[in-house]
Amino acid sequence: MVDMFDAKSIAVIGGSETKGKIGYDLMISLLNYYKGEIIPVNPKGGRIHGIPAYTSIKEHGPVDLAVIAIPAHLVPAAVEECGEIGIKNLIIISAGFKEVDGEGAELENQVVEICKNYDIDLVGPNCLGIMNTYNDMNASFAPHIAHKGNIAFMTQSGAIMAAILDYADKRNIGFSRIASLGNKAGINENDCMLNFMENENTEVITSYLEGIIDGPGFIEVCRKASQRKPIVLIKAGRTSKGSEAVSSHTGTIAGSDSAYDAAFSQCGVLRATYLEEMMDYSRALSLFPLPKGNKIAIITNAGGPGILTTDAAIKVGLEMAELTTETKERLKEVLPETASVKNPVDVLGDASPYRYTVALYIVLKDPNVDGVIYLVTPQSVTDPEGIANVAIEHANNSDKPVLCSFFGGTRCDEAERVLASKNVPNYLYPKAAVKSMKALYDYTIIKNQEYPKPPKFEVDKSIVKRIIEDAKKKGVYTLGLESFDILKAYGIPTVGTAITQTVEETIESGEEIGYPLVMKIVSPQISHKSDVGGIKLNLNNAEEVKAAYEDMMENISKKEPEADIEGVQLQKMLSHGMEVIIGMVKDPTFGPLLMFGLGGIYVEILKDVKFAIAPVNEIEANNMITGIKTHELLKGTRGNKAKDIESIAQIILRISQLVTEFPEINEFEINPLIVFEEGEGALSVDMRLILKED
Amino acid sequence: MVDMFDAKSIAVIGGSETKGKIGYDLMISLLNYYKGEIIPVNPKGGRIHGIPAYTSIKEHGPVDLAVIAIPAHLVPAAVEECGEIGIKNLIIISAGFKEVDGEGAELENQVVEICKNYDIDLVGPNCLGIMNTYNDMNASFAPHIAHKGNIAFMTQSGAIMAAILDYADKRNIGFSRIASLGNKAGINENDCMLNFMENENTEVITSYLEGIIDGPGFIEVCRKASQRKPIVLIKAGRTSKGSEAVSSHTGTIAGSDSAYDAAFSQCGVLRATYLEEMMDYSRALSLFPLPKGNKIAIITNAGGPGILTTDAAIKVGLEMAELTTETKERLKEVLPETASVKNPVDVLGDASPYRYTVALYIVLKDPNVDGVIYLVTPQSVTDPEGIANVAIEHANNSDKPVLCSFFGGTRCDEAERVLASKNVPNYLYPKAAVKSMKALYDYTIIKNQEYPKPPKFEVDKSIVKRIIEDAKKKGVYTLGLESFDILKAYGIPTVGTAITQTVEETIESGEEIGYPLVMKIVSPQISHKSDVGGIKLNLNNAEEVKAAYEDMMENISKKEPEADIEGVQLQKMLSHGMEVIIGMVKDPTFGPLLMFGLGGIYVEILKDVKFAIAPVNEIEANNMITGIKTHELLKGTRGNKAKDIESIAQIILRISQLVTEFPEINEFEINPLIVFEEGEGALSVDMRLILKED
Repeated sequence: MVDMFDAKSIAVIGGSETKGKIGYDLMISLLNYYKGEIIPVNPKGGRIHGIPAYTSIKEHGPVDLAVIAIPAHLVPAAVEECGEIGIKNLIIISAGFKEVDGEGAELENQVVEICKNYDIDLVGPNCLGIMNTYNDMNASFAPHIAHKGNIAFMTQSGAIMAAILDYADKRNIGFSRIASLGNKAGINENDCMLNFMENENTEVITSYLEGIIDGPGFIEVCRKASQRKPIVLIKAGRTSKGSEAVSSHTGTIAGSDSAYDAAFSQCGVLRATYLEEMMDYSRALSLFPLPKGNKIAIITNAGGPGILTTDAAIKVGLEMAELTTETKERLKEVLPETASVKNPVDVLGDASPYRYTVALYIVLKDPNVDGVIYLVTPQSVTDPEGIANVAIEHANNSDKPVLCSFFGGTRCDEAERVLASKNVPNYLYPKAAVKSMKALYDYTIIKNQEYPKPPKFEVDKSIVKRIIEDAKKKGVYTLGLESFDILKAYGIPTVGTAITQTVEETIESGEEIGYPLVMKIVSPQISHKSDVGGIKLNLNNAEEVKAAYEDMMENISKKEPEADIEGVQLQKMLSHGMEVIIGMVKDPTFGPLLMFGLGGIYVEILKDVKFAIAPVNEIEANNMITGIKTHELLKGTRGNKAKDIESIAQIILRISQLVTEFPEINEFEINPLIVFEEGEGALSVDMRLILKED
Repeated sequence: MVDMFDAKSIAVIGGSETKGKIGYDLMISLLNYYKGEIIPVNPKGGRIHGIPAYTSIKEHGPVDLAVIAIPAHLVPAAVEECGEIGIKNLIIISAGFKEVDGEGAELENQVVEICKNYDIDLVGPNCLGIMNTYNDMNASFAPHIAHKGNIAFMTQSGAIMAAILDYADKRNIGFSRIASLGNKAGINENDCMLNFMENENTEVITSYLEGIIDGPGFIEVCRKASQRKPIVLIKAGRTSKGSEAVSSHTGTIAGSDSAYDAAFSQCGVLRATYLEEMMDYSRALSLFPLPKGNKIAIITNAGGPGILTTDAAIKVGLEMAELTTETKERLKEVLPETASVKNPVDVLGDASPYRYTVALYIVLKDPNVDGVIYLVTPQSVTDPEGIANVAIEHANNSDKPVLCSFFGGTRCDEAERVLASKNVPNYLYPKAAVKSMKALYDYTIIKNQEYPKPPKFEVDKSIVKRIIEDAKKKGVYTLGLESFDILKAYGIPTVGTAITQTVEETIESGEEIGYPLVMKIVSPQISHKSDVGGIKLNLNNAEEVKAAYEDMMENISKKEPEADIEGVQLQKMLSHGMEVIIGMVKDPTFGPLLMFGLGGIYVEILKDVKFAIAPVNEIEANNMITGIKTHELLKGTRGNKAKDIESIAQIILRISQLVTEFPEINEFEINPLIVFEEGEGALSVDMRLILKED
């Protein structure tokens, strides 16, 4: 099947000679650049821009790609015709589908069905079209084709495509392929990602998305693609308050953006927040070699900008390289006495292109330097153009990235033009240069990232299956620690616990579990147990258990005579260890979203938690633990010994398996899990599991 | 005395006809614009650029301003001559002073002395000079004078002045006055701030600083100035690791930037991090009315950019205005059916200038809207220029701010030019528009901020004086809880404490303090008290005290036979309450820097603290408490009652008074202060006070 970007013949269904119609713009877009065959289709026939028009595509026969720009209600019939004659690639530009109303959605469904029947790849509907600069194909109603380059771009918003084209045109930024995905009824971001991944003219993949259709598929595709090419992506709508009412801590804290952030970091996607960031990062990635580390040097002709740039670099997580003694000595030899040969290297306000040349040459040779930020501030004797030529020479030939920032205005115009003409970006703001350097470094890490398979523990699924089925039969959808067998079946340790109905049974269970014990009343009507004497702590022997039981029953029968008493819950009292929470909520895009955090105020007030999409592998489980700000507390502080982090990781992995194997689990939380000192494990004290109601 | 910016006659000492000399550039800078009298002074005499030169300034007599550009070693004599004939304003452009070496510093001191003798206002040395666009004075060696405008700018870096001039030139940004302060030997940022504050052509004060000479003076000046005009300031060097080794938590956490951040927020300074931010904010502040609140509306012709801008707005702390039903209905009447009349208002991709006009008109009338972000994305039918004219019309006539962001490139060039020509900034990146809107809102708050005097408590200074003098006499510079009388003298409550030397004394003190008690060994050699049995908890009566004392002495005489035992410390054991820390370190710029935070891991690991420069008033003391992230814990959570926040504030105020009245206190910390429930006060449990060694 022909890749639609490589189409050698394109039919424009709805091609027109009437200005103002999209079919007119489409014809012009193609005619202006495209060398392949262009076939206008219009029921009126005649000639369109001098080319004979077919009244129906069926008259002409198959083409590599058909672009449809006719009113929405006529589209299904046109698609059917395309299918009948064996056309396999289709772009529907027309709007009026799912984005409008229910009727439109119905129409869109029809189209999708027809495409399925005929095995047609469909872009759109409600999109701007696609471009391939390598065969001069502008199959879109954007008037100008992009400059040729190695960045591929897909976007869910046509307006963003128009804006980026205009932005890039001014800055001489080139693209390989561009796709406006519109309603994504057929081709979605995952298909397009794979296309860009395989395309040899593409070296960086960029994307603007407002949503993702198939979250797990997205993760899989991006893991593959990001090891071959950097992916820079904007997901708009960070601050949307998307989540519905939920009943666990995990649910309260997890916004929809938590899942996106987790997913992107788990599959090597560099997330940009704004369009300018996306373009800054992708240009750097498309042009420069990757730095081996995060240690940068700054070369500047003024102290102030050097300090501001250092501030910015440290803020984003880069480090200032310590120049070697040899470098400093070589710099001293060639720079004026008052120049600074420490990093930032200050070549002084009167620096000539020559002085920049030698400084850059020497600094790039320093083994401690992974990349250079090249700052130029136009001062009275500065020759920005000459200094730009120095940058070009090195930026295009060094094995380390050299990112330029000429900060100024009118006097830097010519330097900017020179840089742009040689395909060296000028980051007007040093901060942008620094952030782009960080993106290069981040990709150095991503490129080498591995995605081992999650472990597969031997568990007893049948127990869990039975408990869930029993609960559903009873119409119970929220399970608590009475269902600890679920944890046990998955090898997750629980604290000794029993639910008992009589005093004898209680005493016996107490002996089995061991002292000291906590006793709590079990009653659906009693939620504030301590208010009614429904909690007894520190029971040290059978007598105390007996007394506590009797006292509790008496108290409650007085204070809550109406309550159904289902029994009491006995639990071993744990006097040391640290509380943590492991939870899961279902994200509508990515599925099970795991959360880890320390218990109590750390979760409730500090919201210091880390998320990951399940299933997670060992690296990801460990990243969840080390990713919280209060991670140091687990490592032992203030004289406390380190906690058993390994056992937390193991429990996360087992929960990951549980929630993956039982998709009917909608929410899950172990809260608290008590973690003991290194080597001593952890115990689940309580759990909460919410089933999807059928 | 004449304000040097208003000079009607300027002597250029070192004025020259030789290209490449700064005296040449200076003459050209003045001749190109200045209408006043220009007097070149050069020992060679003759004519300079056609103007007769004097061989000495004394030949000519007084002028309003002399600018000196001769080698550093000749400067003192020239300054002396200026003084002798009564010149009161001086700019020394020449470098070669304190910035170079000790010899240069010596030379600078000489100059400063001479200026003092003759009461001369000195700018520089080692600076670029000054500009006043309102009398066409370019007394600098920057070749072009700035455009006329209402932003004043002072900078410690000449290179930054050059860069900003170039940046502003391209963007048609105007200035009233510019000063390059160089080494700040005479005029410093405070003097310059006052000058700008009084200057009627100045509406916004901007500044680039690398350090502040007189911190307390700076706070005073800025409090005054910021109520009249917004101050936007960059302090470079945020990430410097300036602080020396310190011995308290406060000292460990307080970096030099903490003091700057605290000071700026206490005196109404808007801090910018980068030059582009400074320019963005100051342009908005110089052009637009202030918003009454932080609720904005976004008008856009494309959904995607609307979402990205919403994300940015919420991130910086703005809110999305809820449009009134009336607004929505009026919008519905005039906009196409598929347009969004909710905020962000989407006028659709084919929006004409007319559609933008009506939408903007209606939205600005909405009482819920405090300001508008006006987004334009160039799409195929968009008329950026026409839409720019709509923005100009409203931006210049509305009583609400309208900030434009035309995001694109080539197709927005003309719109940008039109906007710039009418003095309406285009924030290319929506994020910059949003941040500038936030700066406007921040200034709305600052303008109404009050700075009441700190309270003056009745305290017994003589006690503190005596304790400090006694300690110094003994060569003791670190005081602990044995000096609780310092706190008592300042009305700061302390927990019952005694240091005793004999068993009898200990028993007696125990009875006085009341039970339960903690006993600790007091010995300079024993720091890990619990390791040697040097701590006894929970002593409930005289017998237990006696036994504990005897046991402790016996233990320690065995385990630490060499230790000097100074006695034991008895303290009431507090079983409830919350630990907080109040501390102070000396900041080299601003003096006493107070810190507040919750105790234990909150300070040590989370570094969740708030700083303020002392003396603080009640508002500032309360801001310290509410400014920590874990503030909620003090307000009561998880069933705990609220803590006595008022008593914390009182203690902060008293400590503020203490450290202000005793500048010899170099470091101070109450750690922990135990805070009880509302109305029940707080008690200092331990303190640490470090005196300056003479």
